[in-house]
Amino acid sequence: MQLSIAQIETKLHDKKFNLEKIEHFLCEAKQKNSDLVLFPELSLTGYSIGPWLKEAAEERDGSSITYLKHLCKKLKMNTVISFPERYEQQYFISAAFISDSGEIEAVYRKTHLYDEEQVYFTPGDEIPVFNTKFGVIGMMSCFDLEFPEVARILSKKGADLILIPTSNMAPYTEHQRLYTQCRAMENEIPLALCNRIGVEGRHHFMGESVFVDAQGETHLLLSDQEELHTIPVLLMKGTDPKLNYILDSQPHLYKELYC
Amino acid sequence: MQLSIAQIETKLHDKKFNLEKIEHFLCEAKQKNSDLVLFPELSLTGYSIGPWLKEAAEERDGSSITYLKHLCKKLKMNTVISFPERYEQQYFISAAFISDSGEIEAVYRKTHLYDEEQVYFTPGDEIPVFNTKFGVIGMMSCFDLEFPEVARILSKKGADLILIPTSNMAPYTEHQRLYTQCRAMENEIPLALCNRIGVEGRHHFMGESVFVDAQGETHLLLSDQEELHTIPVLLMKGTDPKLNYILDSQPHLYKELYC
Repeated sequence: MQLSIAQIETKLHDKKFNLEKIEHFLCEAKQKNSDLVLFPELSLTGYSIGPWLKEAAEERDGSSITYLKHLCKKLKMNTVISFPERYEQQYFISAAFISDSGEIEAVYRKTHLYDEEQVYFTPGDEIPVFNTKFGVIGMMSCFDLEFPEVARILSKKGADLILIPTSNMAPYTEHQRLYTQCRAMENEIPLALCNRIGVEGRHHFMGESVFVDAQGETHLLLSDQEELHTIPVLLMKGTDPKLNYILDSQPHLYKELYC
Repeated sequence: MQLSIAQIETKLHDKKFNLEKIEHFLCEAKQKNSDLVLFPELSLTGYSIGPWLKEAAEERDGSSITYLKHLCKKLKMNTVISFPERYEQQYFISAAFISDSGEIEAVYRKTHLYDEEQVYFTPGDEIPVFNTKFGVIGMMSCFDLEFPEVARILSKKGADLILIPTSNMAPYTEHQRLYTQCRAMENEIPLALCNRIGVEGRHHFMGESVFVDAQGETHLLLSDQEELHTIPVLLMKGTDPKLNYILDSQPHLYKELYC
Protein backbone atom coordinates (compact mmCIF):
# COMPACT_ATOMS: atom_id res chain seq x y z
CA MET A 1 0.00 0.00 0.00
CA GLN A 2 1.11 3.57 -0.72
CA LEU A 3 0.17 5.66 2.31
CA SER A 4 0.10 9.47 2.26
CA ILE A 5 0.25 11.69 5.30
CA ALA A 6 -1.26 15.13 4.58
CA GLN A 7 0.10 17.44 7.27
CA ILE A 8 -2.04 20.52 6.68
CA GLU A 9 -3.05 23.76 8.34
CA THR A 10 -6.80 24.27 8.62
CA LYS A 11 -8.88 27.40 9.04
CA LEU A 12 -11.14 27.48 12.09
CA HIS A 13 -14.86 27.30 11.32
CA ASP A 14 -14.36 27.54 7.54
CA LYS A 15 -15.44 24.23 6.04
CA LYS A 16 -15.37 25.53 2.48
CA PHE A 17 -11.71 26.54 2.78
CA ASN A 18 -10.77 23.27 4.48
CA LEU A 19 -12.70 21.10 2.01
CA GLU A 20 -10.95 22.76 -0.91
CA LYS A 21 -7.59 22.12 0.72
CA ILE A 22 -8.48 18.49 1.45
CA GLU A 23 -9.55 18.05 -2.18
CA HIS A 24 -6.29 19.62 -3.36
CA PHE A 25 -4.23 17.20 -1.29
CA LEU A 26 -6.33 14.19 -2.32
CA CYS A 27 -5.62 15.08 -5.95
CA GLU A 28 -1.92 15.55 -5.24
CA ALA A 29 -1.81 12.13 -3.55
CA LYS A 30 -3.61 10.62 -6.54
CA GLN A 31 -0.90 11.94 -8.83
CA LYS A 32 1.65 10.21 -6.62
CA ASN A 33 -0.22 6.89 -6.98
CA SER A 34 -1.19 6.88 -3.34
CA ASP A 35 -3.84 4.48 -2.07
CA LEU A 36 -4.83 6.16 1.17
CA VAL A 37 -4.49 9.69 2.58
CA LEU A 38 -4.52 10.39 6.31
CA PHE A 39 -5.54 13.92 7.39
CA PRO A 40 -5.23 15.56 10.86
CA GLU A 41 -7.85 15.59 13.61
CA LEU A 42 -10.89 17.81 12.96
CA SER A 43 -9.42 18.98 9.66
CA LEU A 44 -12.90 19.60 8.25
CA THR A 45 -13.55 22.44 10.71
CA GLY A 46 -10.35 23.28 12.60
CA TYR A 47 -9.63 22.13 16.13
CA SER A 48 -11.30 24.60 18.51
CA ILE A 49 -14.71 24.21 16.95
CA GLY A 50 -16.49 23.62 20.28
CA PRO A 51 -18.43 26.92 20.47
CA TRP A 52 -19.79 26.49 16.91
CA LEU A 53 -20.68 22.82 17.05
CA LYS A 54 -24.39 23.35 16.44
CA GLU A 55 -23.77 24.77 12.97
CA ALA A 56 -20.44 23.12 12.12
CA ALA A 57 -20.98 19.49 13.15
CA GLU A 58 -22.39 17.02 10.63
CA GLU A 59 -24.08 13.66 10.68
CA ARG A 60 -22.49 10.88 8.67
CA ASP A 61 -24.65 11.75 5.70
CA GLY A 62 -23.93 15.49 6.03
CA SER A 63 -23.04 17.56 2.99
CA SER A 64 -19.26 17.64 3.50
CA ILE A 65 -18.95 13.93 4.16
CA THR A 66 -21.21 13.22 1.17
CA TYR A 67 -19.04 15.44 -1.00
CA LEU A 68 -15.91 13.61 0.17
CA LYS A 69 -17.51 10.23 -0.55
CA HIS A 70 -18.18 11.29 -4.15
CA LEU A 71 -14.67 12.66 -4.43
CA CYS A 72 -13.08 9.42 -3.16
CA LYS A 73 -15.14 7.41 -5.64
CA LYS A 74 -14.21 9.73 -8.50
CA LEU A 75 -10.50 9.71 -7.64
CA LYS A 76 -10.46 6.03 -6.63
CA MET A 77 -8.82 7.04 -3.40
CA ASN A 78 -9.20 5.93 0.22
CA THR A 79 -8.99 8.51 2.99
CA VAL A 80 -9.32 9.06 6.73
CA ILE A 81 -11.08 12.34 7.54
CA SER A 82 -11.75 13.60 11.05
CA PHE A 83 -14.80 15.77 11.68
CA PRO A 84 -17.14 16.86 14.48
CA GLU A 85 -19.98 14.36 14.30
CA ARG A 86 -23.53 15.09 15.43
CA TYR A 87 -25.51 12.07 16.54
CA GLU A 88 -28.84 12.52 18.27
CA GLN A 89 -28.15 15.19 20.92
CA GLN A 90 -24.43 14.48 21.16
CA TYR A 91 -21.19 15.53 19.46
CA PHE A 92 -18.16 13.32 18.88
CA ILE A 93 -14.64 13.82 17.51
CA SER A 94 -14.95 11.23 14.76
CA ALA A 95 -12.65 9.81 12.10
CA ALA A 96 -14.27 8.29 9.02
CA PHE A 97 -12.51 5.79 6.77
CA ILE A 98 -13.93 6.47 3.29
CA SER A 99 -13.06 3.85 0.68
CA ASP A 100 -12.36 4.28 -3.03
CA SER A 101 -15.86 3.03 -3.76
CA GLY A 102 -17.23 6.10 -2.00
CA GLU A 103 -18.48 4.31 1.10
CA ILE A 104 -17.82 5.00 4.77
CA GLU A 105 -16.16 1.75 5.82
CA ALA A 106 -15.82 2.66 9.50
CA VAL A 107 -16.09 5.54 11.92
CA TYR A 108 -14.04 5.83 15.11
CA ARG A 109 -15.20 8.19 17.85
CA LYS A 110 -12.36 9.51 20.03
CA THR A 111 -12.57 7.77 23.40
CA HIS A 112 -10.15 9.91 25.47
CA LEU A 113 -10.96 13.62 25.42
CA TYR A 114 -8.25 16.15 26.19
CA ASP A 115 -8.83 19.14 28.43
CA GLU A 116 -11.55 21.48 27.04
CA GLU A 117 -12.76 18.87 24.55
CA GLN A 118 -14.59 17.44 27.54
CA VAL A 119 -16.77 20.55 27.67
CA TYR A 120 -18.11 20.10 24.15
CA PHE A 121 -17.78 16.48 23.12
CA THR A 122 -18.95 13.06 24.28
CA PRO A 123 -16.31 10.31 24.41
CA GLY A 124 -16.80 7.36 22.08
CA ASP A 125 -17.67 4.03 23.66
CA GLU A 126 -15.95 1.59 21.32
CA ILE A 127 -12.41 0.73 20.21
CA PRO A 128 -13.07 -1.18 16.97
CA VAL A 129 -10.97 -2.60 14.15
CA PHE A 130 -12.26 -3.08 10.61
CA ASN A 131 -11.31 -5.01 7.51
CA THR A 132 -10.06 -3.23 4.41
CA LYS A 133 -8.50 -4.55 1.25
CA PHE A 134 -5.16 -3.49 2.78
CA GLY A 135 -5.58 -5.47 5.99
CA VAL A 136 -7.16 -4.99 9.42
CA ILE A 137 -7.04 -1.34 10.45
CA GLY A 138 -7.60 0.38 13.78
CA MET A 139 -7.95 4.11 14.37
CA MET A 140 -7.46 6.37 17.35
CA SER A 141 -7.40 10.13 17.72
CA CYS A 142 -4.68 12.37 19.26
CA PHE A 143 -4.86 12.08 23.10
CA ASP A 144 -5.91 8.41 22.75
CA LEU A 145 -2.28 7.70 21.79
CA GLU A 146 -1.13 8.64 25.29
CA PHE A 147 -3.21 5.83 26.83
CA PRO A 148 -1.50 2.47 26.22
CA GLU A 149 -4.83 0.70 26.64
CA VAL A 150 -6.18 1.90 23.28
CA ALA A 151 -3.38 0.58 21.06
CA ARG A 152 -3.29 -2.59 23.12
CA ILE A 153 -6.98 -3.28 22.55
CA LEU A 154 -6.58 -2.64 18.80
CA SER A 155 -3.60 -5.00 18.81
CA LYS A 156 -5.49 -7.74 20.65
CA LYS A 157 -8.27 -7.41 18.08
CA GLY A 158 -5.80 -8.10 15.28
CA ALA A 159 -5.03 -4.66 13.82
CA ASP A 160 -2.28 -4.73 11.17
CA LEU A 161 -1.96 -0.93 11.13
CA ILE A 162 -3.06 1.96 13.36
CA LEU A 163 -4.02 5.31 11.79
CA ILE A 164 -4.07 8.41 14.01
CA PRO A 165 -5.47 11.85 13.06
CA THR A 166 -4.04 14.32 15.56
CA SER A 167 -4.15 17.99 16.60
CA ASN A 168 -1.28 17.99 19.04
CA MET A 169 0.27 21.17 20.35
CA ALA A 170 3.29 22.48 22.18
CA PRO A 171 4.68 21.59 24.68
CA TYR A 172 3.88 17.95 23.89
CA THR A 173 6.41 17.34 21.10
CA GLU A 174 8.39 14.85 23.18
CA HIS A 175 5.21 13.05 24.24
CA GLN A 176 4.21 12.52 20.61
CA ARG A 177 7.67 11.31 19.60
CA LEU A 178 7.94 8.90 22.53
CA TYR A 179 4.41 7.52 22.51
CA THR A 180 4.31 6.82 18.76
CA GLN A 181 7.50 4.77 18.99
CA CYS A 182 6.44 3.02 22.18
CA ARG A 183 2.92 2.06 21.01
CA ALA A 184 4.36 0.59 17.81
CA MET A 185 7.08 -1.36 19.65
CA GLU A 186 5.03 -2.63 22.57
CA ASN A 187 2.39 -3.97 20.19
CA GLU A 188 4.66 -4.78 17.24
CA ILE A 189 2.29 -2.94 14.89
CA PRO A 190 3.07 -0.16 12.38
CA LEU A 191 1.49 3.18 13.12
CA ALA A 192 0.90 6.36 11.09
CA LEU A 193 0.12 9.67 12.79
CA CYS A 194 -0.90 12.85 10.95
CA ASN A 195 -0.67 15.99 13.07
CA ARG A 196 -1.74 19.44 11.91
CA ILE A 197 0.33 22.63 11.88
CA GLY A 198 -0.49 26.29 12.48
CA VAL A 199 -1.88 28.33 15.33
CA GLU A 200 -5.37 28.68 16.84
CA GLY A 201 -5.49 31.14 19.74
CA ARG A 202 -3.09 29.82 22.40
CA HIS A 203 -2.63 26.47 20.62
CA HIS A 204 0.52 26.04 18.57
CA PHE A 205 0.23 22.76 16.63
CA MET A 206 3.68 21.38 15.97
CA GLY A 207 3.35 18.91 13.11
CA GLU A 208 6.03 16.19 13.22
CA SER A 209 3.70 13.65 11.63
CA VAL A 210 5.30 10.25 11.67
CA PHE A 211 5.28 6.69 10.38
CA VAL A 212 6.80 4.05 12.67
CA ASP A 213 7.10 0.39 11.69
CA ALA A 214 6.36 -2.67 13.81
CA GLN A 215 9.92 -2.70 15.17
CA GLY A 216 9.66 0.92 16.31
CA GLU A 217 11.80 2.28 13.49
CA THR A 218 10.80 5.74 12.23
CA HIS A 219 10.54 5.77 8.42
CA LEU A 220 9.02 9.22 8.02
CA LEU A 221 9.13 12.25 10.31
CA LEU A 222 7.80 15.55 8.97
CA SER A 223 8.77 19.02 10.14
CA ASP A 224 6.31 21.83 10.95
CA GLN A 225 5.48 22.75 7.34
CA GLU A 226 2.38 21.98 5.30
CA GLU A 227 3.28 18.99 3.18
CA LEU A 228 2.10 15.67 1.83
CA HIS A 229 4.40 12.67 1.93
CA THR A 230 3.76 9.27 0.44
CA ILE A 231 5.51 6.10 1.56
CA PRO A 232 5.18 2.40 0.80
CA VAL A 233 3.78 0.58 3.83
CA LEU A 234 4.14 -3.14 4.41
CA LEU A 235 1.52 -4.34 6.84
CA MET A 236 3.96 -6.66 8.54
CA LYS A 237 3.70 -7.23 12.26
CA GLY A 238 6.67 -7.83 14.50
CA THR A 239 8.21 -11.25 14.34
CA ASP A 240 10.70 -11.39 17.24
CA PRO A 241 9.74 -14.85 18.57
CA LYS A 242 10.89 -13.86 22.06
CA LEU A 243 8.67 -10.79 22.27
CA ASN A 244 5.23 -12.33 22.15
CA TYR A 245 3.67 -9.33 23.84
CA ILE A 246 0.15 -10.59 23.25
CA LEU A 247 0.84 -14.30 23.79
CA ASP A 248 2.95 -13.67 26.91
CA SER A 249 0.50 -11.22 28.46
CA GLN A 250 -1.43 -12.20 31.58
CA PRO A 251 -4.92 -10.82 30.94
CA HIS A 252 -6.41 -12.44 34.05
CA LEU A 253 -4.25 -9.99 36.07
CA TYR A 254 -5.54 -6.92 34.25
CA LYS A 255 -8.97 -6.82 35.84
CA GLU A 256 -7.82 -3.82 37.84
CA LEU A 257 -7.52 -1.78 34.64
CA TYR A 258 -11.17 -2.38 33.97
CA CYS A 259 -12.61 -1.59 37.40
CA MET B 1 15.26 9.64 50.06
CA GLN B 2 18.75 8.72 48.87
CA LEU B 3 18.37 5.86 46.38
CA SER B 4 21.29 3.70 45.25
CA ILE B 5 21.37 1.59 42.11
CA ALA B 6 23.91 -1.24 42.42
CA GLN B 7 24.65 -2.35 38.87
CA ILE B 8 26.63 -5.51 39.51
CA GLU B 9 27.87 -8.62 37.77
CA THR B 10 26.87 -11.87 39.48
CA LYS B 11 28.36 -15.35 39.29
CA LEU B 12 25.99 -18.08 38.18
CA HIS B 13 25.06 -20.59 40.89
CA ASP B 14 27.49 -19.14 43.43
CA LYS B 15 25.43 -17.63 46.25
CA LYS B 16 28.42 -17.19 48.51
CA PHE B 17 30.23 -15.03 45.96
CA ASN B 18 27.10 -13.02 45.17
CA LEU B 19 26.16 -12.51 48.83
CA GLU B 20 29.62 -11.17 49.59
CA LYS B 21 29.34 -8.75 46.68
CA ILE B 22 25.86 -7.64 47.77
CA GLU B 23 27.17 -7.05 51.29
CA HIS B 24 30.10 -5.06 49.90
CA PHE B 25 27.78 -2.78 47.94
CA LEU B 26 25.35 -2.39 50.85
CA CYS B 27 28.26 -1.17 52.96
CA GLU B 28 29.44 1.18 50.22
CA ALA B 29 25.92 2.62 49.95
CA LYS B 30 25.82 3.05 53.72
CA GLN B 31 28.98 5.13 53.56
CA LYS B 32 27.26 7.35 51.02
CA ASN B 33 24.30 7.87 53.37
CA SER B 34 21.98 5.96 51.10
CA ASP B 35 18.56 4.86 52.36
CA LEU B 36 17.74 2.13 49.87
CA VAL B 37 19.79 -0.04 47.48
CA LEU B 38 18.25 -1.65 44.40
CA PHE B 39 20.03 -4.74 43.00
CA PRO B 40 19.48 -6.53 39.65
CA GLU B 41 17.12 -9.42 38.95
CA LEU B 42 18.18 -12.78 40.44
CA SER B 43 21.38 -11.26 41.80
CA LEU B 44 21.49 -13.81 44.60
CA THR B 45 22.10 -16.68 42.17
CA GLY B 46 22.76 -15.30 38.69
CA TYR B 47 20.17 -15.24 35.92
CA SER B 48 20.21 -18.67 34.23
CA ILE B 49 19.65 -20.57 37.44
CA GLY B 50 16.76 -22.66 36.05
CA PRO B 51 18.55 -26.05 35.91
CA TRP B 52 19.73 -25.71 39.53
CA LEU B 53 16.55 -24.39 41.10
CA LYS B 54 16.07 -27.34 43.45
CA GLU B 55 19.28 -26.55 45.32
CA ALA B 56 19.58 -22.79 44.66
CA ALA B 57 16.04 -21.52 45.34
CA GLU B 58 15.09 -20.40 48.85
CA GLU B 59 11.94 -19.84 50.80
CA ARG B 60 11.42 -16.43 52.35
CA ASP B 61 13.03 -17.63 55.56
CA GLY B 62 15.94 -19.25 53.74
CA SER B 63 19.49 -18.77 54.91
CA SER B 64 20.53 -16.07 52.40
CA ILE B 65 17.42 -13.97 52.93
CA THR B 66 17.77 -14.35 56.68
CA TYR B 67 21.40 -13.24 56.46
CA LEU B 68 20.37 -10.17 54.42
CA LYS B 69 17.66 -9.30 56.93
CA HIS B 70 20.21 -9.24 59.73
CA LEU B 71 22.58 -7.23 57.58
CA CYS B 72 19.91 -4.63 56.74
CA LYS B 73 19.06 -4.29 60.42
CA LYS B 74 22.74 -3.95 61.38
CA LEU B 75 23.46 -1.36 58.67
CA LYS B 76 20.08 0.40 59.04
CA MET B 77 19.63 0.03 55.32
CA ASN B 78 16.65 -0.79 53.08
CA THR B 79 17.18 -2.95 50.01
CA VAL B 80 15.42 -4.71 47.16
CA ILE B 81 16.92 -8.14 46.46
CA SER B 82 15.73 -10.48 43.72
CA PHE B 83 16.06 -14.22 44.23
CA PRO B 84 14.58 -17.52 43.02
CA GLU B 85 11.83 -18.25 45.54
CA ARG B 86 10.59 -21.72 46.38
CA TYR B 87 7.01 -21.93 47.58
CA GLU B 88 5.32 -25.30 47.93
CA GLN B 89 6.13 -27.09 44.68
CA GLN B 90 6.66 -23.91 42.66
CA TYR B 91 9.46 -21.49 41.83
CA PHE B 92 9.09 -17.74 41.33
CA ILE B 93 11.39 -14.89 40.28
CA SER B 94 10.82 -12.80 43.39
CA ALA B 95 11.96 -9.40 44.63
CA ALA B 96 11.94 -8.79 48.37
CA PHE B 97 11.85 -5.33 49.92
CA ILE B 98 13.82 -5.70 53.17
CA SER B 99 13.54 -2.73 55.53
CA ASP B 100 16.13 -1.25 57.87
CA SER B 101 14.43 -3.00 60.76
CA GLY B 102 15.36 -6.33 59.20
CA GLU B 103 11.87 -7.27 58.06
CA ILE B 104 10.60 -8.33 54.65
CA GLU B 105 8.06 -5.57 53.96
CA ALA B 106 6.85 -6.99 50.66
CA VAL B 107 7.64 -9.59 48.01
CA TYR B 108 6.78 -9.19 44.33
CA ARG B 109 6.69 -12.29 42.11
CA LYS B 110 7.43 -11.54 38.45
CA THR B 111 4.17 -11.81 36.52
CA HIS B 112 5.46 -11.81 32.91
CA LEU B 113 8.07 -14.47 32.22
CA TYR B 114 10.48 -14.07 29.33
CA ASP B 115 11.35 -16.90 26.96
CA GLU B 116 13.03 -19.83 28.79
CA GLU B 117 12.00 -18.50 32.20
CA GLN B 118 8.65 -20.07 31.36
CA VAL B 119 10.25 -23.52 31.49
CA TYR B 120 11.41 -23.18 35.08
CA PHE B 121 9.31 -20.57 36.85
CA THR B 122 5.66 -19.93 37.70
CA PRO B 123 4.34 -16.41 37.01
CA GLY B 124 3.20 -14.39 40.02
CA ASP B 125 -0.50 -13.72 40.34
CA GLU B 126 -0.53 -10.28 41.96
CA ILE B 127 0.60 -6.74 41.13
CA PRO B 128 0.70 -5.14 44.60
CA VAL B 129 1.85 -1.85 46.07
CA PHE B 130 3.02 -1.42 49.64
CA ASN B 131 3.56 1.37 52.13
CA THR B 132 7.03 2.32 53.25
CA LYS B 133 8.28 5.26 55.24
CA PHE B 134 9.34 6.75 51.90
CA GLY B 135 5.91 6.49 50.28
CA VAL B 136 3.87 3.92 48.36
CA ILE B 137 6.15 1.65 46.34
CA GLY B 138 5.44 -0.82 43.53
CA MET B 139 7.87 -3.34 42.07
CA MET B 140 8.12 -5.18 38.80
CA SER B 141 10.83 -7.36 37.28
CA CYS B 142 12.58 -7.02 33.90
CA PHE B 143 10.19 -8.22 31.11
CA ASP B 144 7.22 -6.86 33.12
CA LEU B 145 8.39 -3.37 32.08
CA GLU B 146 7.55 -4.13 28.45
CA PHE B 147 3.87 -4.64 29.31
CA PRO B 148 2.19 -1.27 29.92
CA GLU B 149 -0.49 -2.96 31.98
CA VAL B 150 1.84 -3.60 34.93
CA ALA B 151 2.98 -0.01 35.52
CA ARG B 152 -0.57 1.18 34.90
CA ILE B 153 -1.99 -1.09 37.59
CA LEU B 154 0.70 0.06 40.06
CA SER B 155 -0.14 3.66 39.16
CA LYS B 156 -3.87 3.15 39.65
CA LYS B 157 -3.11 1.66 43.07
CA GLY B 158 -1.28 4.82 44.08
CA ALA B 159 2.40 3.98 43.70
CA ASP B 160 4.72 6.95 44.23
CA LEU B 161 7.76 5.09 42.87
CA ILE B 162 8.38 1.92 40.84
CA LEU B 163 11.49 -0.18 41.51
CA ILE B 164 12.64 -2.66 38.84
CA PRO B 165 15.34 -5.32 39.26
CA THR B 166 16.31 -6.42 35.74
CA SER B 167 18.52 -8.89 33.84
CA ASN B 168 18.12 -7.46 30.36
CA MET B 169 20.37 -8.47 27.52
CA ALA B 170 21.38 -7.48 24.00
CA PRO B 171 19.74 -6.71 21.60
CA TYR B 172 17.12 -5.04 23.80
CA THR B 173 19.01 -1.86 24.75
CA GLU B 174 16.62 0.38 22.84
CA HIS B 175 13.62 -1.38 24.35
CA GLN B 176 14.89 -0.70 27.88
CA ARG B 177 15.63 2.95 27.11
CA LEU B 178 12.26 3.55 25.48
CA TYR B 179 10.05 1.63 27.89
CA THR B 180 11.57 3.13 31.05
CA GLN B 181 10.90 6.65 29.76
CA CYS B 182 7.45 5.81 28.47
CA ARG B 183 6.20 4.01 31.61
CA ALA B 184 7.33 6.96 33.74
CA MET B 185 5.70 9.55 31.45
CA GLU B 186 2.43 7.75 30.73
CA ASN B 187 1.86 7.23 34.45
CA GLU B 188 3.62 10.36 35.72
CA ILE B 189 5.55 8.27 38.26
CA PRO B 190 9.31 8.12 38.86
CA LEU B 191 10.96 4.81 38.12
CA ALA B 192 14.31 3.22 38.99
CA LEU B 193 15.65 0.25 37.06
CA CYS B 194 18.77 -1.72 38.02
CA ASN B 195 20.09 -3.98 35.28
CA ARG B 196 23.02 -6.35 35.66
CA ILE B 197 26.15 -6.54 33.54
CA GLY B 198 28.36 -9.38 32.36
CA VAL B 199 27.90 -12.51 30.28
CA GLU B 200 26.19 -15.85 30.95
CA GLY B 201 26.44 -18.25 28.00
CA ARG B 202 24.74 -16.54 25.05
CA HIS B 203 23.31 -13.74 27.22
CA HIS B 204 25.15 -10.43 27.19
CA PHE B 205 23.62 -8.20 29.88
CA MET B 206 24.04 -4.57 28.93
CA GLY B 207 23.62 -2.54 32.11
CA GLU B 208 22.36 0.98 31.40
CA SER B 209 20.52 1.13 34.71
CA VAL B 210 18.43 4.24 34.88
CA PHE B 211 16.41 6.62 37.01
CA VAL B 212 13.61 8.54 35.26
CA ASP B 213 11.45 11.12 37.01
CA ALA B 214 7.68 11.59 36.76
CA GLN B 215 8.08 13.90 33.77
CA GLY B 216 10.14 11.32 31.86
CA GLU B 217 13.44 13.08 32.41
CA THR B 218 16.47 10.82 32.84
CA HIS B 219 18.50 11.79 35.91
CA LEU B 220 20.87 8.84 35.95
CA LEU B 221 21.95 6.49 33.17
CA LEU B 222 24.78 4.07 33.89
CA SER B 223 27.13 2.49 31.35
CA ASP B 224 28.03 -1.22 31.20
CA GLN B 225 30.46 -1.22 34.14
CA GLU B 226 29.98 -2.52 37.68
CA GLU B 227 29.16 0.54 39.75
CA LEU B 228 26.95 1.91 42.50
CA HIS B 229 25.35 5.32 42.11
CA THR B 230 23.35 7.21 44.69
CA ILE B 231 20.89 9.97 43.88
CA PRO B 232 18.37 12.01 45.82
CA VAL B 233 14.84 10.99 44.84
CA LEU B 234 11.80 13.15 45.39
CA LEU B 235 8.66 11.04 45.36
CA MET B 236 6.75 13.66 43.45
CA LYS B 237 4.19 12.57 40.88
CA GLY B 238 3.45 14.47 37.70
CA THR B 239 1.42 17.61 38.09
CA ASP B 240 0.53 18.66 34.52
CA PRO B 241 -3.17 19.44 35.13
CA LYS B 242 -3.96 18.65 31.48
CA LEU B 243 -2.45 15.17 31.58
CA ASN B 244 -4.68 13.43 34.06
CA TYR B 245 -3.85 10.05 32.66
CA ILE B 246 -5.63 8.23 35.44
CA LEU B 247 -8.55 10.65 35.83
CA ASP B 248 -9.11 10.92 32.07
CA SER B 249 -8.88 7.20 31.44
CA GLN B 250 -11.99 5.27 30.43
CA PRO B 251 -11.71 2.02 32.39
CA HIS B 252 -15.16 0.80 31.34
CA LEU B 253 -13.69 0.42 27.82
CA TYR B 254 -10.76 -1.68 28.95
CA LYS B 255 -12.68 -4.89 29.60
CA GLU B 256 -11.11 -6.32 26.45
CA LEU B 257 -7.68 -6.19 28.09
CA TYR B 258 -8.97 -8.45 30.81
CA CYS B 259 -10.75 -11.09 28.73
